[in-house]
Amino acid sequence: KITKWMPKEESIDRLKMEDLLKRRFFYDQSFSIYGGVNGLYDYGPMGCAIKANVLAEWRRHFILEEQMLEVDCSMLTPEIVLKASGHVDRFADFMVKDVKTGECFRADHLIEAQLERLLKAKDINPEKKAEIERLLPQIDNMKGPDMQKVIEQYKMKSPVTNNDLSEPVTFNLMFATSIGPTGQVKGFLRPETAQGIFVNFKRLLEFNQGRLPFAAAQIGNSFRNEISPRSGLIRVREFTMAEIEHFVDPTDKSHPKFETVADLQIQLYSASNQMSGESAQVVRLGDAVNSKLINNETLGYFIGRIYQFMTKVGVDKRKLRFRQHMSNEMAHYACDCWDAECKTSYGWVECVGCADRSCYDLTQHMKFSGERLVAERPLPAPKKVQVNEVQAYANVIGKSFGKDTATITKHLQQLSHDDARALHDKLEQGDEKINIDGKEFAITRKMFTFRSIEKTVQVEEFVPSVIEPSFGIGRIMYAMWEHNFRIRPEDEQRTYFTLPPLITPYKCVILPLSGNEEFKPYVKQISAILIQAGISHKIDTSSGTIGRRYSRSDEIAVPFAITIDFDTLKQPYSVTLRERDTFKQIRVKIDEIATILQGLSTGTVTWGELCTQYPEFVEQQTTKEQQ
Amino acid sequence: KITKWMPKEESIDRLKMEDLLKRRFFYDQSFSIYGGVNGLYDYGPMGCAIKANVLAEWRRHFILEEQMLEVDCSMLTPEIVLKASGHVDRFADFMVKDVKTGECFRADHLIEAQLERLLKAKDINPEKKAEIERLLPQIDNMKGPDMQKVIEQYKMKSPVTNNDLSEPVTFNLMFATSIGPTGQVKGFLRPETAQGIFVNFKRLLEFNQGRLPFAAAQIGNSFRNEISPRSGLIRVREFTMAEIEHFVDPTDKSHPKFETVADLQIQLYSASNQMSGESAQVVRLGDAVNSKLINNETLGYFIGRIYQFMTKVGVDKRKLRFRQHMSNEMAHYACDCWDAECKTSYGWVECVGCADRSCYDLTQHMKFSGERLVAERPLPAPKKVQVNEVQAYANVIGKSFGKDTATITKHLQQLSHDDARALHDKLEQGDEKINIDGKEFAITRKMFTFRSIEKTVQVEEFVPSVIEPSFGIGRIMYAMWEHNFRIRPEDEQRTYFTLPPLITPYKCVILPLSGNEEFKPYVKQISAILIQAGISHKIDTSSGTIGRRYSRSDEIAVPFAITIDFDTLKQPYSVTLRERDTFKQIRVKIDEIATILQGLSTGTVTWGELCTQYPEFVEQQTTKEQQ
Repeated sequence: KITKWMPKEESIDRLKMEDLLKRRFFYDQSFSIYGGVNGLYDYGPMGCAIKANVLAEWRRHFILEEQMLEVDCSMLTPEIVLKASGHVDRFADFMVKDVKTGECFRADHLIEAQLERLLKAKDINPEKKAEIERLLPQIDNMKGPDMQKVIEQYKMKSPVTNNDLSEPVTFNLMFATSIGPTGQVKGFLRPETAQGIFVNFKRLLEFNQGRLPFAAAQIGNSFRNEISPRSGLIRVREFTMAEIEHFVDPTDKSHPKFETVADLQIQLYSASNQMSGESAQVVRLGDAVNSKLINNETLGYFIGRIYQFMTKVGVDKRKLRFRQHMSNEMAHYACDCWDAECKTSYGWVECVGCADRSCYDLTQHMKFSGERLVAERPLPAPKKVQVNEVQAYANVIGKSFGKDTATITKHLQQLSHDDARALHDKLEQGDEKINIDGKEFAITRKMFTFRSIEKTVQVEEFVPSVIEPSFGIGRIMYAMWEHNFRIRPEDEQRTYFTLPPLITPYKCVILPLSGNEEFKPYVKQISAILIQAGISHKIDTSSGTIGRRYSRSDEIAVPFAITIDFDTLKQPYSVTLRERDTFKQIRVKIDEIATILQGLSTGTVTWGELCTQYPEFVEQQTTKEQQ
Repeated sequence: KITKWMPKEESIDRLKMEDLLKRRFFYDQSFSIYGGVNGLYDYGPMGCAIKANVLAEWRRHFILEEQMLEVDCSMLTPEIVLKASGHVDRFADFMVKDVKTGECFRADHLIEAQLERLLKAKDINPEKKAEIERLLPQIDNMKGPDMQKVIEQYKMKSPVTNNDLSEPVTFNLMFATSIGPTGQVKGFLRPETAQGIFVNFKRLLEFNQGRLPFAAAQIGNSFRNEISPRSGLIRVREFTMAEIEHFVDPTDKSHPKFETVADLQIQLYSASNQMSGESAQVVRLGDAVNSKLINNETLGYFIGRIYQFMTKVGVDKRKLRFRQHMSNEMAHYACDCWDAECKTSYGWVECVGCADRSCYDLTQHMKFSGERLVAERPLPAPKKVQVNEVQAYANVIGKSFGKDTATITKHLQQLSHDDARALHDKLEQGDEKINIDGKEFAITRKMFTFRSIEKTVQVEEFVPSVIEPSFGIGRIMYAMWEHNFRIRPEDEQRTYFTLPPLITPYKCVILPLSGNEEFKPYVKQISAILIQAGISHKIDTSSGTIGRRYSRSDEIAVPFAITIDFDTLKQPYSVTLRERDTFKQIRVKIDEIATILQGLSTGTVTWGELCTQYPEFVEQQTTKEQQ
């Protein structure tokens, strides 16, 4: 969900940034040599490397740290699974069609855009203005007839042709296909990765030796057939998600590690803030959980961990808030839900959802599949329970009734508690005739017994609750790009990204000062050292001034540059190491390079610390161009 | 392609292995609580971690080492792209239907299975036997009518119902869907990742600053709607591929790093070996390229690199061969193709294809999209060429002919060289009438010029060739499992996998000797050290003898076990480190653990080396159970 109509305090030159992202192939529209397809994008080498780094950090931060169980499930999904999850019936948006051209528009987006345009008109009268301002926040909850009323009232037309619009109809957002050659197995591309975890719940619980809580996680692509996607990377038809399903006993949602995040100060935008028109508040996470603003410790713990992850990969904490769902937008089964939203030039964009979905999903799959998706908890004390045992002896029945055996046996086994007891009592007196589908059968005592016995049980079954942090990787990457896009004050053609070294595609660039033949063996040697150490890097031996080449590497966020100069040729063989954001340079020995860059890339050492340990390098003729 | 009818020299207990793989949730059938879907599988925590490790090593081995350009492209693909690639027209198998039940079978598999059964009949006569043996190798190349002849001749029926079969019809293996709400954009799920690279060729060439050769790579899922998949993980409907497209000048397929792989001794199964019924030969790679058995150095280099990768991740080199395509199975445009095949209980299975596809793919996309997908090479010497310049002056034409201007201008610009020169010469004499679609226009000298000028060009354009190594990750993993599955000679219930530490889901397990409270802080401390160092590990504090717990961790291939015992509690705090395959144990200090395990996991130190440096640990009462 994109929350628009938020004040845009800082502006970012989105066109300039997108130009850079496309020119250096971070991403671009898919299949553009064929005209492209809306809502489909390809990541080029830079975007792809950033994505791989974000996912690697996600795995370390969540899966390794919390010993989560990662799975990798099919994207093709048979219909029944998505019937159970509710997607077949409810995963839809309203759309309107241009009655002449057939062009489709998402109804809520069209209404919102047209109302916002009216609002901006100079001659708008105060009553109209108030009415529109009252309507805007309601759009998200409107159904078809409400939308139709607004469309009629404001005489809305197609924004492209000005033709009339059809009435809003629902359009299911899943891509349908058919599995197998007969066309009989209807399937969809999954709209989220979560269902793959739920249908594997039993195996995962068993893998975890029956113990709760545990979390499963999945990284993978999902698909949504958006009606008319237009917001670049924010609204796409195919995207990578990373989802966690943390299964927990609903009677105990405490978290043993909550204390490790309790002191985080996080921007929370509660439902009550939103209703009363207040802005988000910075709150200590521990206080938010204590005051029950956040429903429980486990949900609070994940909010803290999401905050840590987002800021580690480069999201600006001042442009990150957690917005609580209001009761009217929250699914009926959910007990609390907070979205991590990032502020971008598109407004506040939901990048991570974090919901306590109670036991909804497992209950649904239990209902549709007939499998018991439950866990067990020990009872405080052993409990005595009455257990009814019905036994129909098919071998005895078979001797009397041959081919009707199965029918009779099934009938007897399905008798209610009371009927079974009654039959049992009658059989004690003598044979008893029973009637099945108009046919009579004489049942004897040897064919049937019923007992009600007392058993002692140590455990009880329950359906676990699920707490679900769900990450949209593409949106997070887009926010990271906007939050880190910079223009050098001294030259507005020089743009760069301040992404953290952990995330940048290359950790460094190797630059010989010039095309001098003597530098070449050092380029090779240093590259071999870096490959050996697993440090991704770029070599730029192209012509052009060193300053121009620094600029080219700044554009793709390379945080450090190794420059080979005439001092490199002399003992102790050394190079300069330049930092992207500060232009500062230090002089280090070639055989220290791998360790230093490994430290900088993983965050075990900072640039600031290095600057206190190594001599600053100042060129004799530093011109602006050469920095 | 699975080559069957290969002798099975060693047998592996596939049922036992699959039981282990499912019981410990390496993988299992998708959606099985709903009855499952054939050909769809989910990886559980163990399979998922192995897959992530294989892919991480693939990235290091290929992308980082060769500085390849990685991309991540859409799976949803519009029809035109797959028209161009040939998949819409030709990516199909023949199928036959049970005429009564409608059940579908892949025709070649059905024919093959039924012929093989006939061959095994005791009373088969020698002529029949010879005929079937002649037919079997031909099945792969049969079209529908040939298949129908065999089906009729042998009176083949449905293997399930014995009903008659329909004639073979082609069935396209792509999953179709519709993109967007109007249903007008037909799309498919990609059947391979390669096309995403080809359609991005221009951007990638530009990213590489116009230089060749370069390689692009992609890891991602592809989809094939197999008719009736039955071979477990070998034939699935959704699978992860890793593909490389190495673009090279067709006039120079040398490779600067070929020497680094030239000495590898590799099992090659050449087309001529196959035709003459010989078996595969172990050949030095350098010799195979010199003798032109392998078409060129670049293809040879990749064969060497594939060999290195496969053996590094745990494929048994004795069960790995490269099989050359025979001329009748190779695509018409390919100039040489070798499949890396792994020997499994299903026969020799293609796991990696490595083909020189010449310029086929780029040429096709050029034809269908109209974009020029070419590179430039410098000419040996600058060349003078005649360039024709036609100029129609629309502004002058417009003054005389108004609305016909566009028609006239277009007509003039499209004149052939000769016609343009003729017109130009005539206009030197005076105005000239031309006839367009029955209408006459008087053209003057001011409206049109033609010049033939000489230009010097430094470069010429060409369509690059592409060499394509294409990896089926699921098949490689399956081969790794079969090649590393072991049964302890002393107890056939104890099974384990000898996977290399680089690939195992967990690098170690932490085991307290017993439930003693004093051990607990050490479990926590060591786990924290390992998390800090990024080493994935398992903690097993369950009850059960230490031997039983070793067995449980051997089953999931954990290569090392850290045991906390009473000596751990005393200075110098130490633990035992046990190796999975040899049962050998050494004693190491707690603060050395992270470095040692990091070395073992990345292969910078071997267990054998460690055993010479650290004291062997021998328990005072070693029983078999406790090993």
